[in-house]
Amino acid sequence: MKHDRRLVEVALGNRSYPIHIGRGLLQDAALIRESVPARQVMIISNETVAPLYLAALKTALGERRITAVSLPDGEQEKCLESMLPVFDEMLVNGFGRDCQVVALGGGVIGDLAGFVAATYQRGVNFVQIPTTLLAMVDSSVGGKTGVNHPRGKNMIGAFHQPRAVIADLEVLGTLPDRELRAGMAEVVKYALLGDREFLDWLDGHVDAALAREPDALAFIVERCCRNKAAIVAADEREAGQRALLNLGHTFGHAIEAARGYGDWLHGEAIAAGMCMAACLSARQGWISREERDRAVDLIGRVGLPTSPPTDLGAERFREFMARDKKNRDGELRLVLLRGLGDAVVTADYDEAALTATLEGEADD
Amino acid sequence: MKHDRRLVEVALGNRSYPIHIGRGLLQDAALIRESVPARQVMIISNETVAPLYLAALKTALGERRITAVSLPDGEQEKCLESMLPVFDEMLVNGFGRDCQVVALGGGVIGDLAGFVAATYQRGVNFVQIPTTLLAMVDSSVGGKTGVNHPRGKNMIGAFHQPRAVIADLEVLGTLPDRELRAGMAEVVKYALLGDREFLDWLDGHVDAALAREPDALAFIVERCCRNKAAIVAADEREAGQRALLNLGHTFGHAIEAARGYGDWLHGEAIAAGMCMAACLSARQGWISREERDRAVDLIGRVGLPTSPPTDLGAERFREFMARDKKNRDGELRLVLLRGLGDAVVTADYDEAALTATLEGEADD
Repeated sequence: MKHDRRLVEVALGNRSYPIHIGRGLLQDAALIRESVPARQVMIISNETVAPLYLAALKTALGERRITAVSLPDGEQEKCLESMLPVFDEMLVNGFGRDCQVVALGGGVIGDLAGFVAATYQRGVNFVQIPTTLLAMVDSSVGGKTGVNHPRGKNMIGAFHQPRAVIADLEVLGTLPDRELRAGMAEVVKYALLGDREFLDWLDGHVDAALAREPDALAFIVERCCRNKAAIVAADEREAGQRALLNLGHTFGHAIEAARGYGDWLHGEAIAAGMCMAACLSARQGWISREERDRAVDLIGRVGLPTSPPTDLGAERFREFMARDKKNRDGELRLVLLRGLGDAVVTADYDEAALTATLEGEADD
Repeated sequence: MKHDRRLVEVALGNRSYPIHIGRGLLQDAALIRESVPARQVMIISNETVAPLYLAALKTALGERRITAVSLPDGEQEKCLESMLPVFDEMLVNGFGRDCQVVALGGGVIGDLAGFVAATYQRGVNFVQIPTTLLAMVDSSVGGKTGVNHPRGKNMIGAFHQPRAVIADLEVLGTLPDRELRAGMAEVVKYALLGDREFLDWLDGHVDAALAREPDALAFIVERCCRNKAAIVAADEREAGQRALLNLGHTFGHAIEAARGYGDWLHGEAIAAGMCMAACLSARQGWISREERDRAVDLIGRVGLPTSPPTDLGAERFREFMARDKKNRDGELRLVLLRGLGDAVVTADYDEAALTATLEGEADD
């Protein structure tokens, strides 16, 4: 299978790292051992993924001091409290600064494990082994780690780059359909925010992706990782353009927090959020109604929500959006579209148009 | 008073920052405002320090959105749980990534506030205003932040440099005697680990320091900060020589953790730890008994413990020391003395000599 592997480099000087993409990577002992050389290894996974892939990973790692912790599945586990038993296990087992943390799971596990690695003994090495499409194309790459606070998503965390990302496309075979669609939301995001050519490709390949055709998935994961790697390399700490990756997220995070984490999946919430961004952009006259409809239709074809929950309302939305990390001096900043494939971060939008968008009002 | 100010620079490229040392700095609105330009400011202090100095700091800051949190005093507060109400307060008040955190207190407050700043929204700016001698000469400088875990000291944390350190020597006037002596432990540490000339000076000025003579305190704070700044600039993330700053700390942290945080002060525990390091070094034949006695006598003259708690025992000591962050591959590494003013990090010591030292056995 070696011929079918793809390698994307995240160029960050002495913190550069490879993203390995291919089928059967979890069985590739040489790759796993090269990526995880430490003698003490803490694997953080969840109760859904561990029964499927933990044994294979352990086999590939071979003789080591391996400790594994499996958290319950779900966004509600992504909190400070979930980190305590992991720290405890590492200390009980005498893990030193030269240990490695391995995240085996989706975005929740990757973000939490990364934050454990960022803060255990002031920082240890870690490796991401994403098992969902969403984690492969987005959350496992770029070093954003953290947990949620009841008052806002990802409010506590750190920038901490992994040593490597290993995306084994074969594990997508066991991914539930709803999770696959949620991951496609982040895929569409890359197209809308800055890759018009990819948008054209997606229009013709949504069905192939949802049918899990290997070539389509491989192309998607590589394309998204290349997009993300370029943006992260240019702006690691989000001083500027990295914020574009937040297209749909200001609205989406508010939906997630307001509904209680785990009700809407992250990808579902940002799908609705991207449609809202497209609608507000159209109301501003920055994109045409036809362009707006093209974006919304694509998201609808994936099987994702295209409008916010009807009972949320503009006031509650604003309350949660006021905590967004992009805000400066209390001013709400949004990622909007100047064109399809051309996003901007801006506070220059019409307040009444925003309110209408938050209320989910039609504008035909 | 301006003529009597001292400025030490911590040279870390684009993360370089000044340490301002002098009397009355808390009343210097220009300095405070230059160091804390943010419009949203979270001041973290404790219930002992806040009543004395919080009002002055707020006056100097002037018109801002200022929120202050006062934790109970003591090492037992330095834990993850204490951070939660701080995060909550910041989120309730809509603090963005452009806010600043100010630590107004001793080492516990500085370490915890720094870790809050390191992790709130993945990192915000912070300023250290140390109010104890220990914090001025050691913990406020260098960017080590973090909290304790029941199983070990400073086990959860991050490297996060402050924007500035403001050491107002006048606040040492209200420092309890026991705290002043504890701070002197870190002062003696710099002399023993690498500054023989300072050791000679200290021999002649211990009494002046304990009497809080302004010139002696100013000299001490500046000298220690210069020592620490040089070491941190050369080795920010403790890949090598920065570990020398841990002289006495491997033993000391074990004493603190074993006795429960807050029983022995940190400075008291590392005072005993430094005497143990000197004893083991003498047992190894690396320093003479006369040199050992000189170090132990100096620590005794400060009024600090010169031997470990008698009831701890080698076995419990080793249990806690096994979690030390300097360990590699499970091997216990210690900071010992090759000479007075010449420390090394080494795993090359005699096990029986270590056991005798842990048991507090005499060796005359």
